[in-house]
Amino acid sequence: MRQATTKNPASKPQKNPVAPRARITRIPATELFPVIEQGLWPAKATEGESFPVRATVFREGHDALGVEAVLIDPEGKEHMRAYMQDVAPGLDRYEAWLMPDRPGDWKFRVDTWSNPYATWSHDATIKIAADTDVELMLEEGARLMERAAAGKPLPAGSRKQKAPSKEDQAVLLEAAALMRDKESSPQTRLSAGLSSQVRSIFRHSPLRELWTRTKTFPIKVDRKKALYSSWYEIFPRSYGAHRDDEGNWISGTLSEAAKQLPRISQMGFDVIYLTPIHPIGFTFRKGRNNTLEAGPMDPGSPYGIGSDAGGHDAIHPDLGTFDDFDAFVAQAREHDMEVALDLALQCSPDHPWVKDHPEWFTTRADGSIAYAENPPKKYQDIYPLNFDNDPEGIYQAVKDVVLKWIEHGVTIFRVDNPHTKPLSFWQRFLADINQTNPEVIFLAEAFTRPAMMRTLGAIGFHQSYTYFAWRTEKDELLDYFKEVATETAHLMRPNFWPTTHDILTPQMTTGGPAIFALRAVLAATASPSWGIYSGYEFVENVQRPGFEEQIDNEKYEYRPRNWEQANQFGLEHLLTLLNSARDRHPAFQQLHRIQVHETSDPRLLCFSKHVPAKFSPTGEDDTVIVVANLDPHNEVIGSATLDLSKLGATVAHGSMGSRINLVDELDGQEYQWGEHNYVRLNPYERVAHVFSVRSTEK
Amino acid sequence: MRQATTKNPASKPQKNPVAPRARITRIPATELFPVIEQGLWPAKATEGESFPVRATVFREGHDALGVEAVLIDPEGKEHMRAYMQDVAPGLDRYEAWLMPDRPGDWKFRVDTWSNPYATWSHDATIKIAADTDVELMLEEGARLMERAAAGKPLPAGSRKQKAPSKEDQAVLLEAAALMRDKESSPQTRLSAGLSSQVRSIFRHSPLRELWTRTKTFPIKVDRKKALYSSWYEIFPRSYGAHRDDEGNWISGTLSEAAKQLPRISQMGFDVIYLTPIHPIGFTFRKGRNNTLEAGPMDPGSPYGIGSDAGGHDAIHPDLGTFDDFDAFVAQAREHDMEVALDLALQCSPDHPWVKDHPEWFTTRADGSIAYAENPPKKYQDIYPLNFDNDPEGIYQAVKDVVLKWIEHGVTIFRVDNPHTKPLSFWQRFLADINQTNPEVIFLAEAFTRPAMMRTLGAIGFHQSYTYFAWRTEKDELLDYFKEVATETAHLMRPNFWPTTHDILTPQMTTGGPAIFALRAVLAATASPSWGIYSGYEFVENVQRPGFEEQIDNEKYEYRPRNWEQANQFGLEHLLTLLNSARDRHPAFQQLHRIQVHETSDPRLLCFSKHVPAKFSPTGEDDTVIVVANLDPHNEVIGSATLDLSKLGATVAHGSMGSRINLVDELDGQEYQWGEHNYVRLNPYERVAHVFSVRSTEK
Repeated sequence: MRQATTKNPASKPQKNPVAPRARITRIPATELFPVIEQGLWPAKATEGESFPVRATVFREGHDALGVEAVLIDPEGKEHMRAYMQDVAPGLDRYEAWLMPDRPGDWKFRVDTWSNPYATWSHDATIKIAADTDVELMLEEGARLMERAAAGKPLPAGSRKQKAPSKEDQAVLLEAAALMRDKESSPQTRLSAGLSSQVRSIFRHSPLRELWTRTKTFPIKVDRKKALYSSWYEIFPRSYGAHRDDEGNWISGTLSEAAKQLPRISQMGFDVIYLTPIHPIGFTFRKGRNNTLEAGPMDPGSPYGIGSDAGGHDAIHPDLGTFDDFDAFVAQAREHDMEVALDLALQCSPDHPWVKDHPEWFTTRADGSIAYAENPPKKYQDIYPLNFDNDPEGIYQAVKDVVLKWIEHGVTIFRVDNPHTKPLSFWQRFLADINQTNPEVIFLAEAFTRPAMMRTLGAIGFHQSYTYFAWRTEKDELLDYFKEVATETAHLMRPNFWPTTHDILTPQMTTGGPAIFALRAVLAATASPSWGIYSGYEFVENVQRPGFEEQIDNEKYEYRPRNWEQANQFGLEHLLTLLNSARDRHPAFQQLHRIQVHETSDPRLLCFSKHVPAKFSPTGEDDTVIVVANLDPHNEVIGSATLDLSKLGATVAHGSMGSRINLVDELDGQEYQWGEHNYVRLNPYERVAHVFSVRSTEK
Repeated sequence: MRQATTKNPASKPQKNPVAPRARITRIPATELFPVIEQGLWPAKATEGESFPVRATVFREGHDALGVEAVLIDPEGKEHMRAYMQDVAPGLDRYEAWLMPDRPGDWKFRVDTWSNPYATWSHDATIKIAADTDVELMLEEGARLMERAAAGKPLPAGSRKQKAPSKEDQAVLLEAAALMRDKESSPQTRLSAGLSSQVRSIFRHSPLRELWTRTKTFPIKVDRKKALYSSWYEIFPRSYGAHRDDEGNWISGTLSEAAKQLPRISQMGFDVIYLTPIHPIGFTFRKGRNNTLEAGPMDPGSPYGIGSDAGGHDAIHPDLGTFDDFDAFVAQAREHDMEVALDLALQCSPDHPWVKDHPEWFTTRADGSIAYAENPPKKYQDIYPLNFDNDPEGIYQAVKDVVLKWIEHGVTIFRVDNPHTKPLSFWQRFLADINQTNPEVIFLAEAFTRPAMMRTLGAIGFHQSYTYFAWRTEKDELLDYFKEVATETAHLMRPNFWPTTHDILTPQMTTGGPAIFALRAVLAATASPSWGIYSGYEFVENVQRPGFEEQIDNEKYEYRPRNWEQANQFGLEHLLTLLNSARDRHPAFQQLHRIQVHETSDPRLLCFSKHVPAKFSPTGEDDTVIVVANLDPHNEVIGSATLDLSKLGATVAHGSMGSRINLVDELDGQEYQWGEHNYVRLNPYERVAHVFSVRSTEK
């Protein structure tokens, strides 16, 4: 087991027993964030939104170090480099923010280096003040200026560096000369090496010694709408639906639905989401309120997809033709809206695939095709695809379906229950579609446990429904806002919905228009993506007994509404104001940088969002503050305490203390707030303040 | 950007756009633990100690899954396979414990699969009870038995499996026949598929469908002493040191120190640690109590290494010869002790390297060699090596030094201040030494910030000094015990020291023998590795004014002690009892599985450790409970509340409630404890109970 000692070591360099990829760098950067599954899956980022990079960085001994986060664009070019700051002193945790400017496959890494200028500045300041080693320290400072001017780090053989500009070189060499000028006092000579000019040069062109880089880690950058979007959900068949003279229902159509696009667009929504528009099966069709026996006039659930009229690639004949669909898409685009289609990968027993590809389903021991079950519950109107039978055949069929709708102008898919299909299917599928159609966005409708929800995001879904609808108390709301903004932002982008056609929580059933207003304010301000299900304007709040969804659910029947009365509760107006505030304020359009502020009452909630000028599309700071009364029945009077230091906004300091000027985006009223602020919110007048901070200097 | 739809999809398989290593598996296992730096560095484990493996596992839909942690030995053979259990329901976090049985480069991975038997059992039980699909479920069960008997998972083409044994096949096929026996009742037929025999077969030979495996991640397994060791530190020169007739000091020797080995061994210590034994420099030698002017009789600090008599590869002439050293090692081995040597990589100005290799140091602008500094402090007696100058030359020289001591029987090195040398040096060096000498253990003396301490462990140090000496209050002690046992066990192995020659905390300076006893109990019971600095027996507790180390420090002078009086405070006896209890109880010899129990008083602390029979060298459960009074001045009467469910021990349930039988390892007294227990600890009688739980059934 022993090895003879080498008498002349220098002549026999040993083999390094550590594999190159596993070697720690000279100045270590460890525990990098955001890194998912050892960097095998890219972390999420969005064009025009900054995101945090973190690393644990430290070195041997006392010398100073430099840490930079480096963003690399899809072409492999260094796009941005930012100094990382120690954000947890004692724990050596460093952070910087980077911002990609376009979609694509980006990367980041962390550069670390020894900072001889910082080391020298620190030591020289102390020693010259103590009259110790004065000449030595000044001479070493002068030599450092010379090396910096020549771009020559130590030790020899280090990574080459670009020498500073001619102007900077001159500044450095002059400083060196002054430091050697024994006619001057030591303090004067030292000052030459510590001047703001010299410090600035070392800041923007540091002399990086022992410069090492970490591996790169992938970042998938998506277009802005993946992060920032306002959804409006409709069942097209309800639009224009009516009874004929004999009392029989006549379906609504895509063309009728298109007539509401101007109204929806005017409210500021930019995604129009259509529940499935495909032919609906007849076998075991569900009746009104999910009854097992459908009446002859019942249109069936649009999620029971497929009949003789076609499957996922067809349009229900009642709704119109592909020409009608194309016209719908064109009108949506005219109103700056994108069309989102439901992708519900399941079949009615009447779906053409059942006949053409029985092998895509599960065959029972008795030769029958298995319907959906969660014993003892049976869903005989639905045949689930078995993705492990002929996976390649199913994969291509689904791809054909999606590509067909993309050809017809669909740019967003709302995927129904993705968590009941294999994740390996989705990962491949989303990458595949995004390879040819990088603009296409997929929203995951997975109301399930956190691990599945996060992983669906991590493997490629662009947006995710969330637990927002079930977060009702102050602390759980604020914790959740922070969670989606800081803990899981690299894994999934949240989309907040107060209700959907499947979800009507107990909270929404009492409290009337106030709770609908409140939940819209919270969803629209706490998450850059949010959405409502049409009819929200009418405070449709009655549950089907025993179920947390609406009675007389639109899934099983026509629900025409009188849109002329859509503002009867003022909600149309509120939705418009909310989307308008979102449009004007970059702080609402991003996920990161949320701060919670204290209030005096558990029913009062306060948070703020902020974009620094450097990362703002306007080039200016943007700060918004939301104060809401969670009680839809009672006026609450209390106070909100702003942590002004964490607000991000410019604060005016005067004889009256620190003040900021606010304007309420919901009614235009102006306020001046300080640290402690009186709040009165009466749900019958207003459920919340949605403040923006006005620049104090203008 | 668009792609034409493929009309005949099955005939044109698309290229999978996801790189193979980045593909999510069919049933995902994510967030594996222990994984360090994306698996580039191995996690720590120890022969004969079990360690936890964790993963987040989930799947689509409702079907059941199986999760196994798999341990792979250095030859690549599957050594152990353990079912992982969901330890955080709702969060899908699974855990199992694995145990390697010898040192080497091991690996682990996680296997996931669909569990058709569990799915069928669940569904069949519900449906047959509800009289639904009875024949269908029984027939599908019978087919499942047949597939299991043949080892044929679905879908076709799945990973091949070993068919069960002939006996098991017979059991399965008989169950299939019974399930098809329409003469019997459905419940009877169902029972045939759910019998304990059938369940046992599916447990040990499961039919694994859709079986996938994660990547493997590295585990470095070290020998047991890396984890479990009891250190005793000495300055050999103090042993036999005396004044001659003229009052001049005569140094002690290795031979004299060897005479104390029987006493030290009798106390149960198994590592004898020698502070540096090399020649000591004269230039700027430090005098008594760290004074700058050494007197002619002052022996200097053994950390000021190197003189004309030699450097790190030499023995101080006062201490003896290599023959004496070899004899010391031999005697230590006779007493079952290993010798640990200090490795302090720094030089006195008189070190031979300074003359022979001035390029290994830093040369100042004035041509002088830089001494150690932390401005404004100067350490002129020490020249630090500059590891960036001729790194290969220094590397080989240090390697030669260490290999020489290994040749002379040193198996452990206590590395002085490793955090002032590059981590890249250590990572390569430790891997290199362990490649030829895997038995050699390195202890990192890095009293610095957590990131550096953990990373030194992660890149190869086998043991680490810790913050134990500075954790004095109940909550901070218990938090720290849990931290080292559960949060950082895969990164570093703790070694708890109440004092060292450099450390005498304020807490130790009052409280007399009681605090010395208490801290020994805590160190010896809470950490599998612990150590004391010789003289601990004498309660040497006076600080040098202004410094948290002993006055008249042995670093700067001879400190002969009268070992015949070493038990004057009873500490020799206590140390012996502690090491003896450690020797008898596997629970003390491992790091994991610590539980904290409540007490009624902030001065009372209670924790337990446990080894389950499966992982115990004795083949039997072992549980120990420590109850300590942290107040060295006052008796405390209170209570300890045991969480019996978390204790691990077998609990007897009788008319008096749940009871366990305890014996106090420190005095042999027996106790019977239940959930709530009276505690009285008087520091003048005993500072703690060190209980072991007696098996109730024997």
